[in-house]
Amino acid sequence: MRQLDPQIIPRFGGISTFARLPISTELDDVKAAFVGVPFDDATTFRPGARFGPSGIRQGSRLLRPYNPFVDVYPFDLLNSSDFGDLKTVPGYTEDTIASIQKAVGEIVSKKKTIPFLAGGDHVIALPNLRAMHLTYGRVNLVHLDSHYDFWDNYWGKKYTHGTWLRRAREEEILNEVVQIGIRGSLYSKEDVEDAKKLGITYYAISNTRDDIGQVIKHVNSLRGKTYLSLDIDVADPAFAPGTGTPEVGGLTSLELVQLIRSFDFDLCGMEVVEVSPPYDVSELTTMLAANLIYEGMSVLARRLK
Amino acid sequence: MRQLDPQIIPRFGGISTFARLPISTELDDVKAAFVGVPFDDATTFRPGARFGPSGIRQGSRLLRPYNPFVDVYPFDLLNSSDFGDLKTVPGYTEDTIASIQKAVGEIVSKKKTIPFLAGGDHVIALPNLRAMHLTYGRVNLVHLDSHYDFWDNYWGKKYTHGTWLRRAREEEILNEVVQIGIRGSLYSKEDVEDAKKLGITYYAISNTRDDIGQVIKHVNSLRGKTYLSLDIDVADPAFAPGTGTPEVGGLTSLELVQLIRSFDFDLCGMEVVEVSPPYDVSELTTMLAANLIYEGMSVLARRLK
Amino acid sequence: MRQLDPQIIPRFGGISTFARLPISTELDDVKAAFVGVPFDDATTFRPGARFGPSGIRQGSRLLRPYNPFVDVYPFDLLNSSDFGDLKTVPGYTEDTIASIQKAVGEIVSKKKTIPFLAGGDHVIALPNLRAMHLTYGRVNLVHLDSHYDFWDNYWGKKYTHGTWLRRAREEEILNEVVQIGIRGSLYSKEDVEDAKKLGITYYAISNTRDDIGQVIKHVNSLRGKTYLSLDIDVADPAFAPGTGTPEVGGLTSLELVQLIRSFDFDLCGMEVVEVSPPYDVSELTTMLAANLIYEGMSVLARRLK
Amino acid sequence: MRQLDPQIIPRFGGISTFARLPISTELDDVKAAFVGVPFDDATTFRPGARFGPSGIRQGSRLLRPYNPFVDVYPFDLLNSSDFGDLKTVPGYTEDTIASIQKAVGEIVSKKKTIPFLAGGDHVIALPNLRAMHLTYGRVNLVHLDSHYDFWDNYWGKKYTHGTWLRRAREEEILNEVVQIGIRGSLYSKEDVEDAKKLGITYYAISNTRDDIGQVIKHVNSLRGKTYLSLDIDVADPAFAPGTGTPEVGGLTSLELVQLIRSFDFDLCGMEVVEVSPPYDVSELTTMLAANLIYEGMSVLARRLK
Amino acid sequence: MRQLDPQIIPRFGGISTFARLPISTELDDVKAAFVGVPFDDATTFRPGARFGPSGIRQGSRLLRPYNPFVDVYPFDLLNSSDFGDLKTVPGYTEDTIASIQKAVGEIVSKKKTIPFLAGGDHVIALPNLRAMHLTYGRVNLVHLDSHYDFWDNYWGKKYTHGTWLRRAREEEILNEVVQIGIRGSLYSKEDVEDAKKLGITYYAISNTRDDIGQVIKHVNSLRGKTYLSLDIDVADPAFAPGTGTPEVGGLTSLELVQLIRSFDFDLCGMEVVEVSPPYDVSELTTMLAANLIYEGMSVLARRLK
Amino acid sequence: MRQLDPQIIPRFGGISTFARLPISTELDDVKAAFVGVPFDDATTFRPGARFGPSGIRQGSRLLRPYNPFVDVYPFDLLNSSDFGDLKTVPGYTEDTIASIQKAVGEIVSKKKTIPFLAGGDHVIALPNLRAMHLTYGRVNLVHLDSHYDFWDNYWGKKYTHGTWLRRAREEEILNEVVQIGIRGSLYSKEDVEDAKKLGITYYAISNTRDDIGQVIKHVNSLRGKTYLSLDIDVADPAFAPGTGTPEVGGLTSLELVQLIRSFDFDLCGMEVVEVSPPYDVSELTTMLAANLIYEGMSVLARRLK
Repeated sequence: MRQLDPQIIPRFGGISTFARLPISTELDDVKAAFVGVPFDDATTFRPGARFGPSGIRQGSRLLRPYNPFVDVYPFDLLNSSDFGDLKTVPGYTEDTIASIQKAVGEIVSKKKTIPFLAGGDHVIALPNLRAMHLTYGRVNLVHLDSHYDFWDNYWGKKYTHGTWLRRAREEEILNEVVQIGIRGSLYSKEDVEDAKKLGITYYAISNTRDDIGQVIKHVNSLRGKTYLSLDIDVADPAFAPGTGTPEVGGLTSLELVQLIRSFDFDLCGMEVVEVSPPYDVSELTTMLAANLIYEGMSVLARRLK
Repeated sequence: MRQLDPQIIPRFGGISTFARLPISTELDDVKAAFVGVPFDDATTFRPGARFGPSGIRQGSRLLRPYNPFVDVYPFDLLNSSDFGDLKTVPGYTEDTIASIQKAVGEIVSKKKTIPFLAGGDHVIALPNLRAMHLTYGRVNLVHLDSHYDFWDNYWGKKYTHGTWLRRAREEEILNEVVQIGIRGSLYSKEDVEDAKKLGITYYAISNTRDDIGQVIKHVNSLRGKTYLSLDIDVADPAFAPGTGTPEVGGLTSLELVQLIRSFDFDLCGMEVVEVSPPYDVSELTTMLAANLIYEGMSVLARRLK
Repeated sequence: MRQLDPQIIPRFGGISTFARLPISTELDDVKAAFVGVPFDDATTFRPGARFGPSGIRQGSRLLRPYNPFVDVYPFDLLNSSDFGDLKTVPGYTEDTIASIQKAVGEIVSKKKTIPFLAGGDHVIALPNLRAMHLTYGRVNLVHLDSHYDFWDNYWGKKYTHGTWLRRAREEEILNEVVQIGIRGSLYSKEDVEDAKKLGITYYAISNTRDDIGQVIKHVNSLRGKTYLSLDIDVADPAFAPGTGTPEVGGLTSLELVQLIRSFDFDLCGMEVVEVSPPYDVSELTTMLAANLIYEGMSVLARRLK
Repeated sequence: MRQLDPQIIPRFGGISTFARLPISTELDDVKAAFVGVPFDDATTFRPGARFGPSGIRQGSRLLRPYNPFVDVYPFDLLNSSDFGDLKTVPGYTEDTIASIQKAVGEIVSKKKTIPFLAGGDHVIALPNLRAMHLTYGRVNLVHLDSHYDFWDNYWGKKYTHGTWLRRAREEEILNEVVQIGIRGSLYSKEDVEDAKKLGITYYAISNTRDDIGQVIKHVNSLRGKTYLSLDIDVADPAFAPGTGTPEVGGLTSLELVQLIRSFDFDLCGMEVVEVSPPYDVSELTTMLAANLIYEGMSVLARRLK
Repeated sequence: MRQLDPQIIPRFGGISTFARLPISTELDDVKAAFVGVPFDDATTFRPGARFGPSGIRQGSRLLRPYNPFVDVYPFDLLNSSDFGDLKTVPGYTEDTIASIQKAVGEIVSKKKTIPFLAGGDHVIALPNLRAMHLTYGRVNLVHLDSHYDFWDNYWGKKYTHGTWLRRAREEEILNEVVQIGIRGSLYSKEDVEDAKKLGITYYAISNTRDDIGQVIKHVNSLRGKTYLSLDIDVADPAFAPGTGTPEVGGLTSLELVQLIRSFDFDLCGMEVVEVSPPYDVSELTTMLAANLIYEGMSVLARRLK
Repeated sequence: MRQLDPQIIPRFGGISTFARLPISTELDDVKAAFVGVPFDDATTFRPGARFGPSGIRQGSRLLRPYNPFVDVYPFDLLNSSDFGDLKTVPGYTEDTIASIQKAVGEIVSKKKTIPFLAGGDHVIALPNLRAMHLTYGRVNLVHLDSHYDFWDNYWGKKYTHGTWLRRAREEEILNEVVQIGIRGSLYSKEDVEDAKKLGITYYAISNTRDDIGQVIKHVNSLRGKTYLSLDIDVADPAFAPGTGTPEVGGLTSLELVQLIRSFDFDLCGMEVVEVSPPYDVSELTTMLAANLIYEGMSVLARRLK
């Protein structure tokens, strides 16, 4: 579908949709759709990711149709659209998980549309991955984040933005898991061991930056459907202040953009989560998130070309 | 039309339209439409009103269907919708004026829809009033503002946000003009005389507050089609910081809301201008603007009931 | 207990407690304690009230020991302290309600301490009122707010910051209910009728301001234990921008301070809720909230003198 | 002197001076000069008033030559200019007091120029008043503030923004003292008594608002040279968030503007202090401060006309 | 000329000029002058660059006289001053272009002063380059930016901040053109071809960073007068949030500072454009812009030494 | 001591202490204590560091007990606590220096506790170093900063945040001094010579980044007690906007974190100064400062293990 042309209607005008794309809830012939998931009650610190989808739409107004670094017109090739936002149930994490799972399942199974989901906090990864599993069987997970997210529980509760990956492992819906950009302090030394026990390969921030070639080689060697989950706090807070649990010492926006451009695997879905506009400044975080989705669509388009 | 129900889809979800109303560019059977006019190149100080329409949409998310103070369901009675934004030509004031005049003219003349226009800077009043004149002949103007806006020119230029009213007078498209809330320093003592010469009745801020009954009686005695132009800087900057040329010592939000609720004349159009989101804090200004449009729709609905 | 003396240790120094009072979790001989309730997952729009308690502590640093308008030393007379924050369960509203009810119940029943609770969103009123009921039987409720808060449900869920009052009525734990400052648009005309059905007296914003003497006379005529629930959005957003569901056209900070100073009833507890620091500017809202708690403690101290 | 004409050079252009007036350090024939005093090390809470002078210059860009409410052209009648800023010694309060006293003394005694001083924290009142005393003998003080400012010391130190008035009384440089707008909690009940002992008449906020006619009558009955000291925190923080020790429940900007317009006494100097731009939002506070200085110049011009 | 000495007058005091240099509109013996160009009506997204000159003056207050990395005292060697701001015509792009061209022409031709221009949006490059051409004939252009800026038109208009370079090429006023830091999505694949057709050499962001030696070698090999145009959005938005059309993934401030320090060509003028203070945070962008001008003056001084 | 467990009490709850550690003013068995020093009257530009300690406490809420990069549990190994804030005398730099020296002296000498001091402006380094000298004799100084801080005086005053190091040299209390990260413009070329005269080794920013191995080798070769003084402006302002005299072109947060992790010398104390929360955005600076203290505690714990 065609973006609203900024050389005719200025970028500050018009109804706000992702990349100024048309709204389409039918998704006929849409190969890739932007899907908002406004929910943040599973976060453990600063809230606000419920405004992530609307913020990312605002942050996407400067995106233009041609990506010269990937050499594609992603929106044309994917016939992209904005699906709108999924229904969530504020204050009720488990109901929300069920609601998301159902809606993403329909998008994926009926229409074969590849969703680019904008969170929302990271708990939405669980229903997203379940939906992938129902359609495709076990999928690989490429997980960009500063945190492991495989703790067991918070406050005795199993479903939070820091525990979804352990749940996904327990539910046996994932194949290979590769984590990139991990840093920050931990609850205990066992956390490191748990990665091994859970069969998760992680690249800590120093490994990520020093051996970026190895990281890229690893993820591009994954076989089968692969889901890309990007927690915006993988970026340094200077580049992404608008998030809930920031960790200093992260990746720059250029490193992130270039990393995604280098991805070449069978992408079945992507999510960018933990974008919290109330903590953002000058749209730094929402613009970065919008660009990362754009790059994700671009590499998908490149494979389909 | 029906708003997106916030008890089903939370207010922080969904595509951003005015009051979460449906988008309608056809306007069939729409008696009152929200229309954005994103333009701010005729402002003389702080810019940003180009983001007014999108900001007011964000600020309108808390509006509910029933107005108990006016005792109407305005959106139902008026079959309201969001028309989207008009085309403007950034950096070219006169081209923009022509573009707006044409578009508003079509809305008003073809569909008999009453527009609720969200600026944009105050220069948009000129094409709006011209369009009213073309359909209805001379209309009255009720003008809430801290400034006279009938200076002759700025920098030798005739079309700015501070000169549109003199132009409108010169073009003989207006009938009675009543200004409310005027305050602030002036360029010269002649400004006061000019009001008389131009046949404009004004209520300075002290008269507005001390004789509010007289003000209301005056505007409600106007006969014939009447246009309501509200510059958000009529509010005190504490209540509306997000504007271009603020003047201290203005009306409170409660005073403004109650003033509009008391209006009872033959409204043919309303505009809320000079809302500049980059200077806003915590959505104070955009929420006030959205509420003032809501009250305007409500008094219109009350007359049509 | 004594505040940390700002003429010895500057106000910008020291560990942050309410009014720089000592921390006391034992509450022996403490007649009035500040109690934080950090929870905001029952909010329907802007989150952040989870940071309310810590924000209000920051906003309380300018409070001095003597209140000349009430002519009391509230902290001395009440032997006040800061109890710290209650345990909550983020993302799990009903668990949190249970946890709060238990903790407030202990404070009230065992120690006869009168709690001054800092929210947190308004759902915390329900466990607070239940705790009051368990100790004192049915209590009256003086409710300052811009919203009725007696809707039936949101998203099919019974426990939210907009439904707690209907729950409290259904549970028959309240005696008289008086609402002050009500304004804003409604879901339907039935909302107004429901107030009557639920036996709730409300003063809309215009009645509140025009008949303030009547409002005061009414609440001061209440007999028996009376709980004071203050939603900070009863203040105009210009005075309290840091809140979740602001309504334009509210009370000024001076009106609020003077209103509370005029209260003279048998106070058994007070809460100030919906303070959301991420949306605050320059501590406007947290300072107002802190001052309102101070005034509440002052009128309590005046009765006990 | 003439302001830079905003109808030729836009208000956002040009070197920033007060009201876009010319810079003049000679002051020949200048009857009223804007004088900056950048110092804030005598503040007891939030700093930043050192940026007050530059902030107020920014906030003054919208001032126009004619004041219709006072019916004067103040800058013309007073031949006003911007003197620039006085030398201060950061971190050394007593050295700074000496430096200010000398500089203000020269302005007042040599040139008979009436200074309109922009602080800086309130400690600058002491050298300003001493300079007035040296030239004129004992002067009256009209003091708009939320605080008494006559405490004895902070941290054992005699010279702070909360103790200058007691020092001035001890030095016997003042005649009558009238305080307007007083509010907020106190250190002890003796504070109220001290006002009497120090021969100070004060109007608490409620008296100020309820008996404004009496307040005006009182100050206009003062005989002899009278100095006007205005702490911006006399305004409610909603109208003046950019200040160091805000007190909720203050005057509105309209009340303040109208109050100064009603002043008619023999003004020998005016100061606006405690404007702290780092805590300001959207220039609310600096614009208010600039307007209050403008009104002060206007009433001076009216008497000299 | 000498800066106002910060060890005598603190940096937060005094009238705000670039680097606290004296104001000089005569420019006698001034080899390099700071010149403000406040205009932003040719921008296509976020406005505010009209406040660029005043913002950059504020951001320059920490600059000290000696640059140890270039080993020069630039202000002494160049006898630098602040010229003030050029006249512009808000809302009238073409009139403004004419006004700038005339004023810059006089600075360059009459006084042989090398201007360091602070924008303003990038359209000001066109009159600046025309003025260069009139005095020096065809000049080279070193262009640091994230965007090509050689699109043909926006909204059918030829003069915008995204089209000036095509105009300059069409007018045949430029010699070699080298672009550095280019990135971001494009309107079409032809954009890349157009660079070639227009005879423009560009270094995309990856080439810029990976082959910085080659970039430096290239620009230092330019023969003849060379103009340096720096759009602040060449920096990553984390380092320069205060700009109109930010692109993620840019240069760091250190990379930019070091790049300019390495320049060694015959500089005839420099501009830093697109600095928009309303979108800045904590003066990040204005301080960076001020420092880049300082480095530009330093390398000029080094050649003249 | 144990942190308040965030998996039981959410991080947004509880009284704010450093890393949610217990408060301990006795320090028995405490090997490392967090100590706040709220003072900023010796700063020469933007104030606000007086709120540094409370800001850093807020910024430390995400710190977890295990540091996987240093492989230690620092709080357990060091039995860490929060000591609260030292007494300071606002507006009186020399009194404050004396007060700090006494208090730090007691912490260091009596209890052998290693203080991790949170400023406050950099003048606090002088009393901190004096206290070290009194207990340990001459100590080495590792000084991370963008500025030399060995100027002689400001405004004729010897004790400021830019002169403390010269004073420390004059007092002969230091052994070796190594400066890291130096950049920015200087007052004169002699500044560079003075480093030599004062026996100070400095690594300018380019040397710091290009020869980081050499820097680390150098500081790790220091023999004897070594004090670590970190001015947060050593970080680039994009990573640490909340500071008083920012210099563009600094270190990233990752570079800083990794640098401290590589330190292996006999640490006798650490300070992080010049954190100014009023200029911070989204807690970027306070979170960075908190993490740097955490890394400092971690390398200390590693040596003690």
